Amino acid sequence: MNFKPRSDLSFDEAEETAKARLAELRGRNYRIDMTRGKPSREQLDLSNGILTVLRPEDCFGADGEDYRNYGFGTGVPEAKELLAAYMGVRPDHVIAGGNSSLSLMHDTVVGAVLSGVPGGTGPWRDGAKFLCPVPGYDRHFAICERLGIEMINVDMHDDGPDMDTVEAMVADDPAIKGIWCVPKYSNPTGAVYSDTVVDRLAGMDAAASDFRIFWDDAYTMHHLTEARPRVTSILEACAGAGYPDRPYMFASTSKITHPGTGIATLAGSAANIADAAHKMSFATIGPDKLNQMRHVRFFGDVDGMAAHMEKHAEIIAPKFAAVDAALTRNLGGKGMATWRKPLGGYFISVDLLDGCAAEVVRLAGEAGVTLTPAGATFPYGRDPRDRNLRLAPTLPPIEELERAMDVFCACVELVSTRKMKESA
Amino acid sequence: MNFKPRSDLSFDEAEETAKARLAELRGRNYRIDMTRGKPSREQLDLSNGILTVLRPEDCFGADGEDYRNYGFGTGVPEAKELLAAYMGVRPDHVIAGGNSSLSLMHDTVVGAVLSGVPGGTGPWRDGAKFLCPVPGYDRHFAICERLGIEMINVDMHDDGPDMDTVEAMVADDPAIKGIWCVPKYSNPTGAVYSDTVVDRLAGMDAAASDFRIFWDDAYTMHHLTEARPRVTSILEACAGAGYPDRPYMFASTSKITHPGTGIATLAGSAANIADAAHKMSFATIGPDKLNQMRHVRFFGDVDGMAAHMEKHAEIIAPKFAAVDAALTRNLGGKGMATWRKPLGGYFISVDLLDGCAAEVVRLAGEAGVTLTPAGATFPYGRDPRDRNLRLAPTLPPIEELERAMDVFCACVELVSTRKMKESA
Repeated sequence: MNFKPRSDLSFDEAEETAKARLAELRGRNYRIDMTRGKPSREQLDLSNGILTVLRPEDCFGADGEDYRNYGFGTGVPEAKELLAAYMGVRPDHVIAGGNSSLSLMHDTVVGAVLSGVPGGTGPWRDGAKFLCPVPGYDRHFAICERLGIEMINVDMHDDGPDMDTVEAMVADDPAIKGIWCVPKYSNPTGAVYSDTVVDRLAGMDAAASDFRIFWDDAYTMHHLTEARPRVTSILEACAGAGYPDRPYMFASTSKITHPGTGIATLAGSAANIADAAHKMSFATIGPDKLNQMRHVRFFGDVDGMAAHMEKHAEIIAPKFAAVDAALTRNLGGKGMATWRKPLGGYFISVDLLDGCAAEVVRLAGEAGVTLTPAGATFPYGRDPRDRNLRLAPTLPPIEELERAMDVFCACVELVSTRKMKESA
Repeated sequence: MNFKPRSDLSFDEAEETAKARLAELRGRNYRIDMTRGKPSREQLDLSNGILTVLRPEDCFGADGEDYRNYGFGTGVPEAKELLAAYMGVRPDHVIAGGNSSLSLMHDTVVGAVLSGVPGGTGPWRDGAKFLCPVPGYDRHFAICERLGIEMINVDMHDDGPDMDTVEAMVADDPAIKGIWCVPKYSNPTGAVYSDTVVDRLAGMDAAASDFRIFWDDAYTMHHLTEARPRVTSILEACAGAGYPDRPYMFASTSKITHPGTGIATLAGSAANIADAAHKMSFATIGPDKLNQMRHVRFFGDVDGMAAHMEKHAEIIAPKFAAVDAALTRNLGGKGMATWRKPLGGYFISVDLLDGCAAEVVRLAGEAGVTLTPAGATFPYGRDPRDRNLRLAPTLPPIEELERAMDVFCACVELVSTRKMKESA
């Protein structure tokens, strides 16, 4: 980026102008929350039909199994079939779980820390490390930090993580046990993993025999445009490369039906699924099977899910467009920010000038717009360049969003101007 | 027990009679599952109304909070209120969780193993031990075994565990970190903890500063008779004794509404709840709040729960009576078995002559009646005297139950006769 203040203004004048603009906006007493990728009320209304779709006669399996009772610790067959189709795998490679894919990820890492995984040499204790493409998802990083797993930043490109770095590190260090990946519409950059990246991840040499790819397929149907990129199946790619147990795949319907009330899934090789089912059997008698059936009845099949996602896209695509338009209008060509125009997902990732992100968040907060804290998209909450911010456009109504973007852009303008003045 | 074969028969004749009886029953080709405490279909039907009770307008909090969205990581206030009343504690001492109290217990122990608990000196690693009143609940024991926590048997009496032993061991050994308790209608004996036992548990000296009581209040409203014993509040007793953080209380509605689809709760001191909420925040964004609201709407309040439990009792009390009648009719006065007549809960615990339990299970299985494996009610699946069996009367229709009891009693008669013949 090359910072360019208006050529007719000195830094002092540019700072005064930006300050005045922000002061004016602050006077409007906005209260807008842009912190998290939450669906809007209009989106939630799309799924109200699921609340009452399940009738008593829907609670039975094909052979009369009573899903209202105990049993089916890895989920009911109907839900496995739906989730397998959603994930692009076979139903016997799937566990249909509870309401949270984050729990499945957390518990998978905890299980590895406590007792290891298939193909390994024991628990992942003492000095285990994960590669973390950055910027990435804060809750992935929080799991590692909590468990004392050292996180190593790897740059994220538009087609996935920097594979030269990933390959070199994974081949070299047996303490590297995993990598976090959001393969499609990655949180927050919107990156879509290319076939080459998937194949390199699947086939690379790993010093750890129990190296795992944590494949959080959170947004596979969460399109924003007619471009519908397909990501190669990591399960098939790894199996083809001779590493069938390398990937753990995760997803949930949290941003499809209602957050916290969805159904989540873990998919993987037969060995991984058997291991996960065994570990789960100590922690629970089983998932909420009736909520699984509720989803099955509501969607019918995976085509029903896809059709439902079109309705989400109709609601949120204009919001993403509004954010992009505001960024372009206010910051375009000024060299203060670059941002992605994602094809799907829940975020717009913005890179500012180095050292500006935290201050922008602080100033925006003072002006009534709460942003995700700077650094949240990095391990340990530390963005080494203090420049990345994650905007979450889905929750606010579009007028609010435009107000929030006014504040955001004014903050960026002021902070960037000051930064440039400092270093001029 | 004093074994008494019919005085007019020799051991050989008694064995032949019992053998013939069992052979005749085996010829009937029964297929009856008595393994687990599962509710019957009739019981499940009681809660069918919950499936469709929640309408879109019920998904909002008192201040308009949208429970269909993310948030409320420790549950919604309405569910906390209901569960707190059920547990006899204040709502701020409660986490309203997901569908499984077993998960809450498992995760609490895992959390302690990984990072300790309030008042402790660090993770429960390396040689941690639990006291296990026996017979007890197999899934409690499985959690400890899985995590490498050494289990120590303590005898269970009708009013709770043998407190002289408990007090002596807990005071002496800082490695003893916990004890499993089912305080009311204990699994499987039906024991109800007396005030004295509760007070001694609450007030005893513990060598470990982070000693914990895992208080699985699974059956607090699961009455079978008009006798409605009250158990002293362990939370208040511990607070009164100066050990407010000692108890973790658990419960769920799994055997109230539908198993696997209920709501679970963890209750405890402010410090324990804050610690548990913090630990949970890494594993999940929150529980299924709409299922919590479904329960709130279905029951209204705790009186609604109590009224609902009366209907369960009407269905299952006759089954418990049938089992007791069959045991009395077939084995009464023979010195082959003693059993409890529980006032509530889900099981009837039977003690046979030493060394007979596994063989009874084997023979019953051959005759088409699947019983809980012998030893299941003990840590490591090992009943040192091989004598305790757990009968689960709730699932089978009453005619099936009577058939199963015919088989069970015939097996007991045959195995006991052979055992006595051996040692005669």
